[in-house]
Amino acid sequence: MEVQAGELLSKINYPSDLRKLDSNRLEEVCNELRQYIIDVVSVNGGHFAANLGVVELTVALHYVLNTPYDQLVWDVGHQAYGHKILTGRRDVFHTNRIYKGISGFPKRSESEYDTFGVGHSSTSISAALGMAVASQYKGETDRQHVAVIGDGSMTAGMAFEALNHAGIENSNLLVILNDNCMSIDPNVGALKEYLTDISTSKGYNRFRDDVSSVLMKISELGPNAHEIVKKIEKSIKGTILKKSNLFESLKFRYFGPIDGHDINHLVKVLEDLKHIPGPKLLHCVTVKGKGYALAEKDQTKWHAPGLFDKITGEIKKSYSDKPQAPKYQDVFGHTLVELAKMNDKIMGVTPAMPSGCSLNIMMKAMPNRAFDVGIAEQHAVTFSAGLASQGLIPFCNIYSSFMQRAFDQVVHDAAIQKLPVVFCLDRAGIAGADGPTHHGAYDIAFFRCIPNMIVSAPMNEEELRNLMYTAQLKNHGGPFSIRYPRGKGVMVDWQRPFAEIEVGQGRKICDGEDIAILTLGHIGNEAVKACQELNADGYHPAHFDMRFAKPLDQNMLLSIFAKYDQIITIEDGCIQGGFGSAILEFAADNQYKGQIKRLGMPDDVIEHGEQQELWEECGYDKVSIINAVKALVVARPVKSLVG
Amino acid sequence: MEVQAGELLSKINYPSDLRKLDSNRLEEVCNELRQYIIDVVSVNGGHFAANLGVVELTVALHYVLNTPYDQLVWDVGHQAYGHKILTGRRDVFHTNRIYKGISGFPKRSESEYDTFGVGHSSTSISAALGMAVASQYKGETDRQHVAVIGDGSMTAGMAFEALNHAGIENSNLLVILNDNCMSIDPNVGALKEYLTDISTSKGYNRFRDDVSSVLMKISELGPNAHEIVKKIEKSIKGTILKKSNLFESLKFRYFGPIDGHDINHLVKVLEDLKHIPGPKLLHCVTVKGKGYALAEKDQTKWHAPGLFDKITGEIKKSYSDKPQAPKYQDVFGHTLVELAKMNDKIMGVTPAMPSGCSLNIMMKAMPNRAFDVGIAEQHAVTFSAGLASQGLIPFCNIYSSFMQRAFDQVVHDAAIQKLPVVFCLDRAGIAGADGPTHHGAYDIAFFRCIPNMIVSAPMNEEELRNLMYTAQLKNHGGPFSIRYPRGKGVMVDWQRPFAEIEVGQGRKICDGEDIAILTLGHIGNEAVKACQELNADGYHPAHFDMRFAKPLDQNMLLSIFAKYDQIITIEDGCIQGGFGSAILEFAADNQYKGQIKRLGMPDDVIEHGEQQELWEECGYDKVSIINAVKALVVARPVKSLVG
Repeated sequence: MEVQAGELLSKINYPSDLRKLDSNRLEEVCNELRQYIIDVVSVNGGHFAANLGVVELTVALHYVLNTPYDQLVWDVGHQAYGHKILTGRRDVFHTNRIYKGISGFPKRSESEYDTFGVGHSSTSISAALGMAVASQYKGETDRQHVAVIGDGSMTAGMAFEALNHAGIENSNLLVILNDNCMSIDPNVGALKEYLTDISTSKGYNRFRDDVSSVLMKISELGPNAHEIVKKIEKSIKGTILKKSNLFESLKFRYFGPIDGHDINHLVKVLEDLKHIPGPKLLHCVTVKGKGYALAEKDQTKWHAPGLFDKITGEIKKSYSDKPQAPKYQDVFGHTLVELAKMNDKIMGVTPAMPSGCSLNIMMKAMPNRAFDVGIAEQHAVTFSAGLASQGLIPFCNIYSSFMQRAFDQVVHDAAIQKLPVVFCLDRAGIAGADGPTHHGAYDIAFFRCIPNMIVSAPMNEEELRNLMYTAQLKNHGGPFSIRYPRGKGVMVDWQRPFAEIEVGQGRKICDGEDIAILTLGHIGNEAVKACQELNADGYHPAHFDMRFAKPLDQNMLLSIFAKYDQIITIEDGCIQGGFGSAILEFAADNQYKGQIKRLGMPDDVIEHGEQQELWEECGYDKVSIINAVKALVVARPVKSLVG
Repeated sequence: MEVQAGELLSKINYPSDLRKLDSNRLEEVCNELRQYIIDVVSVNGGHFAANLGVVELTVALHYVLNTPYDQLVWDVGHQAYGHKILTGRRDVFHTNRIYKGISGFPKRSESEYDTFGVGHSSTSISAALGMAVASQYKGETDRQHVAVIGDGSMTAGMAFEALNHAGIENSNLLVILNDNCMSIDPNVGALKEYLTDISTSKGYNRFRDDVSSVLMKISELGPNAHEIVKKIEKSIKGTILKKSNLFESLKFRYFGPIDGHDINHLVKVLEDLKHIPGPKLLHCVTVKGKGYALAEKDQTKWHAPGLFDKITGEIKKSYSDKPQAPKYQDVFGHTLVELAKMNDKIMGVTPAMPSGCSLNIMMKAMPNRAFDVGIAEQHAVTFSAGLASQGLIPFCNIYSSFMQRAFDQVVHDAAIQKLPVVFCLDRAGIAGADGPTHHGAYDIAFFRCIPNMIVSAPMNEEELRNLMYTAQLKNHGGPFSIRYPRGKGVMVDWQRPFAEIEVGQGRKICDGEDIAILTLGHIGNEAVKACQELNADGYHPAHFDMRFAKPLDQNMLLSIFAKYDQIITIEDGCIQGGFGSAILEFAADNQYKGQIKRLGMPDDVIEHGEQQELWEECGYDKVSIINAVKALVVARPVKSLVG
């Protein structure tokens, strides 16, 4: 749906148009930009509160900087809608996050203003430093390089690594700390408390109290004392609070904190900073959801609320007469609490995704047993391994694509030591509108090569519950991973009694003669639908829900090899090295001579879109499965068993 | 070779024996422990300087703490020799790092005193926090949890993530910062400068200068002024330098800096700290190599010097009449400089391994184009991607097992954006005496599943040079990875002119009839030797050096499929999902009906030992290859082509 931009905004096609305006018009631009974001996101969906929080910052940056020559990197990038609208994409902004539309994140191939593709947090300082060092090397001394990073993103170790390096490079780098005390959920950790301290001057106040008794004595010295005390205080405020600041410790010049919604002040400060060489940090305090009262009040809910009525604030639910299957996320969240009540060894760990993965349910029910550790996947895994080393059973829930951040820790701290950490990989497979950076494409491949690792995936809610139940029964000789997709399962009646699943055991979904379909996880439901239609057409594939990519159900596979000379494997993951390749390996080791066709994500970057659209594009939705079966079975109409 | 321990040390079998001594004997224990380490390492090899640096700390910790109930985690762990000697392993210490001997790192399965296995840096705070939180949950309020971490390890983001979390948990955690200004090479970055500032009080001095002008005015006020100025200074030193300290910012109580070689003071401070609850950090200043003058003087050289004469300090070289093949590391280092002189787009990046990977050659020759970014693999990759986004061609050299730390950044920042970062994976395959944590086992599997990624491996020095040459000729559509092992190549005459290698093109090493052997990388030299012996025995395998695991040489493979009904694949990497699996996938996609046998690291944790010992254990050294060929070719004496 197209939405009309305000009078000023509709004339700003590029930042060069913005820069022609008098600075006293910028507040108006901000108002129109904010309204345009509200208008479009309310009818189109997408990230909301974070974008409202950086409207003034966005306008000020493009007003002051000479973008795209000056280089601007948005950390994470879900707050870059205003940036997109001001840089040539206002009129296609209604296609945001839609299949074949513009990306919800900055993307190099989309615009020269998008200097660096983002999606995962905390990359911006590293990337901008790379740019700044490149400019320095090339002698482009006038060029500005700016990373805008939230206080949540600043908790990830990678940001610290970049600060540590940047502090000793004398390149032209400005880090803008967009401090709104939030990740998707409220930001956590010592750094957040420190930033709050600075912003509210608590640290200074504490210090002042500590030395005030000494200063008081000066007053006794004479009539000029009062003025001198004030001077000392001023010096302390100016020197101590700056020089001993955490960022100053890391050799950054620190400026702020300033109000990130005061557009005129922002413009002035940014102008000044352009002339200060070397690494510097501007601390901006902003309000996530700024300008939309409901969002300011419940920032987590309004992070990405879906469609809503912009006047009433009513969030639109997809309506259905029938009872709905739950989200896998909710099944995880409720089941974990259920299990934790039965087993006091269970703990819960999430790196900053409590509401996304539903660990918030356990955090509320059992606050001493569930931990949000910040955007810190590496730490989350090793912290979990530390808990496991003491006989506890941590359920460490990390989105599949974020688990890419902690591969080493899974190998080094959990698997090599055979520690029973249960890794729940949320958002495994096609993630949807978030696109390439967020698809959980590689986890089967990169977990399957780790010794002592169990790799499992439930086909429905009951299997998720039973895999979680099985995982905590004992130490299975190492970590136990369970991958499941974003979104809804398939069972309305999912709260069934727990039953152990033998590790490595698959199950037959339907019998058949022509061909064997082996699936892993939720995508098996597409195969179920495909088999129903194929049966009606006179084809009779058998379907097996393998449940485990590692260990494989060797007995089941050997009898499948004996019976079928054609096999199709289906997985919601990359085709190289994944579940299908595990089947190929076992087949080769057992001299299977039949044909094995693998369906999965092709060896390419998969763009954004709905899960169903992308399953189709990747060739493993219901229709693709039907076509694959027909192509194989037609190709060999006469059955000839081999081996 | 067994070495006699000193009189006191020889009676200390466990820390309980140590604790029976009067504290005035501890200096003696330290001297004997230091001497024992010198005696054994000089004839046995291993890590040296780091161990000498923590002798006093080790003795003090085991004296004060009630280990193993109190839990001690050594970061990285190559400094834990003293710990091993004091905790039941004195008499097997001469088997350190030897095949089937004790591990060079703490290891849970080796001793209850080794609370957490280590090897890679910066995991200790996370692990110890996990233990501390577990104790808190269990109500073990008297239990101490200590992480000993170097200033080098502190530069890795993971350590910061752990501090950020620990700062808000009220658990009983002591972090001991072992500040010796070194990683393996000199530590770099802003944090290091900050720690030096604190230790030398420069920060305080600068501050004092800044406010001194104000304080001077007080002197004018009267005769008591001088004393008041001193009081203010004292207050500032006590309050500012503590409260505004970087670690205090992160809600740790900061203590120090103290002299890490003053055993009596260490004991006293550690005793005091036992009674202070919550997260706290003790800053110990130590000297790497302490007590061995040569090591103190050249700490990088003496990090792990090999065998040496402990009296003269002469490091023993393996002697040979013949000219020696160079290390792959040196070929990398010299070739990069050679290429960089020809192509001004080339830059070099290493996360803290300049001498290990030989980037130090470029850092010396072209300091503005080569960067040691600290122990910061994540940042190293994204910083490189930032450079590449500006048209430069970074060669980012990371050990294979450390690349596990940056998998996400390779996907997210380099591959998805098709940026031409050249990843040189040093220590790929069996790494040797460092063992399980350091083997480069998984990189083929986890790189091969990434879109737009080229995965290559040279079989010798000339191929390494030519792959590096090829990688920088243009952007090949994404990142270009080159993996090679630790240690020597096979060519004396390696400095040959550059020649482009067509991406994805393999080469035939020898022709044959019976079977095709496909190898990737340096391990192909074992196949060469195997083929020579097999030929003498009347077997005639063909051997192909595939050079690329991705893209595969499809034409070559199709003609191999046409000619041979048996194939052996050989790789110095994990058997699941690696090079052999890539061949299986292509074979399945092309209906190859022959037999494919894969040789590589089995699905297990491979312990430490010499490369040759472990290749044999894993079944892909020369003899194993000969046996594999004979088993297959004997099994099918009559050739029957299929497909």
